[in-house]
Amino acid sequence: MGKLNEKRVDQIVNTILADYEDSRTINKTDLCNQPDKEAIIDIIEKLLKILYPGYFDDKVYRFYSLKNNLSAAIEDIIYHLHKQIKTVLRYNSDMYNLSDEELENMAENITYDFMEKIPQIRAYLETDVQAAFDGDPAAVSKDEVILSYPGVYAISVYRIAHELFTLGVPMIPRIMTEHAHSITGIDIHPGATIGRYFFIDHGTGIVIGETTVIGEHVKMYQGVTLGGLSTSGGQKLKGVKRHPTIGDNVTLYSGSSILGGETVIEENVVVGGNTFVTKSIASDTRVSMKEQELQFKNRKL
Amino acid sequence: MGKLNEKRVDQIVNTILADYEDSRTINKTDLCNQPDKEAIIDIIEKLLKILYPGYFDDKVYRFYSLKNNLSAAIEDIIYHLHKQIKTVLRYNSDMYNLSDEELENMAENITYDFMEKIPQIRAYLETDVQAAFDGDPAAVSKDEVILSYPGVYAISVYRIAHELFTLGVPMIPRIMTEHAHSITGIDIHPGATIGRYFFIDHGTGIVIGETTVIGEHVKMYQGVTLGGLSTSGGQKLKGVKRHPTIGDNVTLYSGSSILGGETVIEENVVVGGNTFVTKSIASDTRVSMKEQELQFKNRKL
Amino acid sequence: MGKLNEKRVDQIVNTILADYEDSRTINKTDLCNQPDKEAIIDIIEKLLKILYPGYFDDKVYRFYSLKNNLSAAIEDIIYHLHKQIKTVLRYNSDMYNLSDEELENMAENITYDFMEKIPQIRAYLETDVQAAFDGDPAAVSKDEVILSYPGVYAISVYRIAHELFTLGVPMIPRIMTEHAHSITGIDIHPGATIGRYFFIDHGTGIVIGETTVIGEHVKMYQGVTLGGLSTSGGQKLKGVKRHPTIGDNVTLYSGSSILGGETVIEENVVVGGNTFVTKSIASDTRVSMKEQELQFKNRKL
Repeated sequence: MGKLNEKRVDQIVNTILADYEDSRTINKTDLCNQPDKEAIIDIIEKLLKILYPGYFDDKVYRFYSLKNNLSAAIEDIIYHLHKQIKTVLRYNSDMYNLSDEELENMAENITYDFMEKIPQIRAYLETDVQAAFDGDPAAVSKDEVILSYPGVYAISVYRIAHELFTLGVPMIPRIMTEHAHSITGIDIHPGATIGRYFFIDHGTGIVIGETTVIGEHVKMYQGVTLGGLSTSGGQKLKGVKRHPTIGDNVTLYSGSSILGGETVIEENVVVGGNTFVTKSIASDTRVSMKEQELQFKNRKL
Repeated sequence: MGKLNEKRVDQIVNTILADYEDSRTINKTDLCNQPDKEAIIDIIEKLLKILYPGYFDDKVYRFYSLKNNLSAAIEDIIYHLHKQIKTVLRYNSDMYNLSDEELENMAENITYDFMEKIPQIRAYLETDVQAAFDGDPAAVSKDEVILSYPGVYAISVYRIAHELFTLGVPMIPRIMTEHAHSITGIDIHPGATIGRYFFIDHGTGIVIGETTVIGEHVKMYQGVTLGGLSTSGGQKLKGVKRHPTIGDNVTLYSGSSILGGETVIEENVVVGGNTFVTKSIASDTRVSMKEQELQFKNRKL
Repeated sequence: MGKLNEKRVDQIVNTILADYEDSRTINKTDLCNQPDKEAIIDIIEKLLKILYPGYFDDKVYRFYSLKNNLSAAIEDIIYHLHKQIKTVLRYNSDMYNLSDEELENMAENITYDFMEKIPQIRAYLETDVQAAFDGDPAAVSKDEVILSYPGVYAISVYRIAHELFTLGVPMIPRIMTEHAHSITGIDIHPGATIGRYFFIDHGTGIVIGETTVIGEHVKMYQGVTLGGLSTSGGQKLKGVKRHPTIGDNVTLYSGSSILGGETVIEENVVVGGNTFVTKSIASDTRVSMKEQELQFKNRKL
């Protein structure tokens, strides 16, 4: 490019500046009160290294200094997580009146409470990895499962985010699960409740809504929706149970949709591919589409 | 590894070099005439910071120097966007005869024309964010929507790319929307026309084809296809309207497919999940699958 | 945050350390024996630059030193690929008794054997790019196809991974295709066999299982599953052909599922959208859903 067209640049800058004066929602004037997405993603990656020691970074954990390395990692996470939590707490309307110090203390307590749950999260993840290995004939080793299965990644991030959600942290849990959604195509709302031995195979296109409840030993495939029946109520539906309940030992094959807050899939049910289920199903049932009627035409005639 | 097996390396290098001599399409001999994907992605990220001031980088925008920061950001984008546009213009067959200077000027004009549309793009995005907040019971705040909703990201990138597409820029708009596709699983062709208050929830697996026209206040869910009926014509179909028209206030639930260039979904229509629609639908209609016949077997018998 | 709560940090560290003592699978005690995911992704990116010379980095390949640049790139890949292959070979149970030197040599041979296949991989990719351009009316140029089509990216990574899989390399091929899955939403198992002129359009949500066999000139769209009928056998099904066979010149429209190891789709078949196929289909057939019965309700009544 030759010389910058200064007049045109000036005009562009001034028009955009004037546009910022508008009271649009998408202008963020309160600059100090926003979470930092990159910092949150960094926290996820650091937590995963603690949850699966030795898997994701051979430079950090070495046996002769495991304790020192772990201490450093944990202090690091505490520092950054606390900072992010403090930032978002004001999104909870009942915290608008708190002083900065009260907010600081609350963020600190939540941060430590969360860190103390790491062994419990690990106990869940151990069962999820086992379920993935047991459930997939193509799985060669549990190492392969941990290192390459998108389902394991999505569930790991969900289990982290769910603890933060349960502790009342706004924004951050959703930013975490949406990051996993972006990586894996698996969209699990941090508010969902999911039991042990949870296995997702392939996973792309899975949606698990906010008020879903899932039991133990549940297995699901790509394209499964656990969703609401209608969202035309919009914000008026907030807090209502809109998503289904799935019992223990249920398998949901690819493309099945289970919809509605009162829909209960009881234990030991197998739901076939491409089914559209809006009513409860009793235990020990195999549900499938009636054989789809296909039309065949000879392309040569 | 011990010493490099020089003989084998030499042979590999020479075989590949010989292979490059072939007149394959996948060898790019005209090295100066290619867009730089990474630079284009960088431009997207910088534009998003201007479109949503204060959201994505607390280091760049500060009140006491907002104008200076904005000027710097805009000059930066102009410089890089101009460079990329100049590179790709030769893909337009009618520009093959232009001199380098003519191309330079044309790229400069397009770049400034695009930058002048930023306030208009922001006016659209304001409505899209509002639609997302209003339409999703799980949305806690508009900040959450902007910071974490993949639909908002995909629409934002589409609105940028669509302006460049409209200005006749080849290649770059598609590279932009395919980047958003990779991040979100939402594939919107930059040629599509989309009205205000557009909301995509969850989004993974959505495809919106090149000649689609979408009205205002349209809401859609994961797995929706707005596609063509058949592509067996291949390149012969270029330029033909192959994708549907969607009216105002239409809701398309998950997994619905609307196909064909003459298919018109009129205003106020609700299209139920997993439907397969190849014919037009009159306004104020609720369309759904006839209740799917399911087969139930007792797994214990 | 004020001062670190040292007591609480200490307790957290000690609890996690104690938790690591457990004999969980998700603790990796053999620290030297794990592949490095980031290094493997880096190898993919470097290979793509060799496979599509001139497309992805104008800084590396210049005509006056093409040979030198290529030699450097190839030596670099050989060094890193050899290191990763040596690391993973011990996952093959029959290699547990090999000495370090034997393993080193075996890894070296596999590495060179793979590198010698680059021209053959390029011959396949040339046909895949051609198929994408011919098959998509929206494609403007083959450059656009190479630079922006997710299908081309997923197929390119699959063709690399498949050669390594065929050479008996564990773990690494799957890490490669899962990386492409993350980028594109297209999940192709490296064990699948896929012929020339393979075209995937849009692609999000595609799953192609381990024992799938695909002929030449096959075209498929988003949401297609080539999968197994049931995986309730889990690890007992390892090695069994569980996924379908697709003949030459077959088109699979969006959302179609072809399931089962004995299901054969013969040549020249067109499979319509949203079909669910579990039986073989004879050549020259067009298969589609019987027209879906839709229910229409007037929303105003």
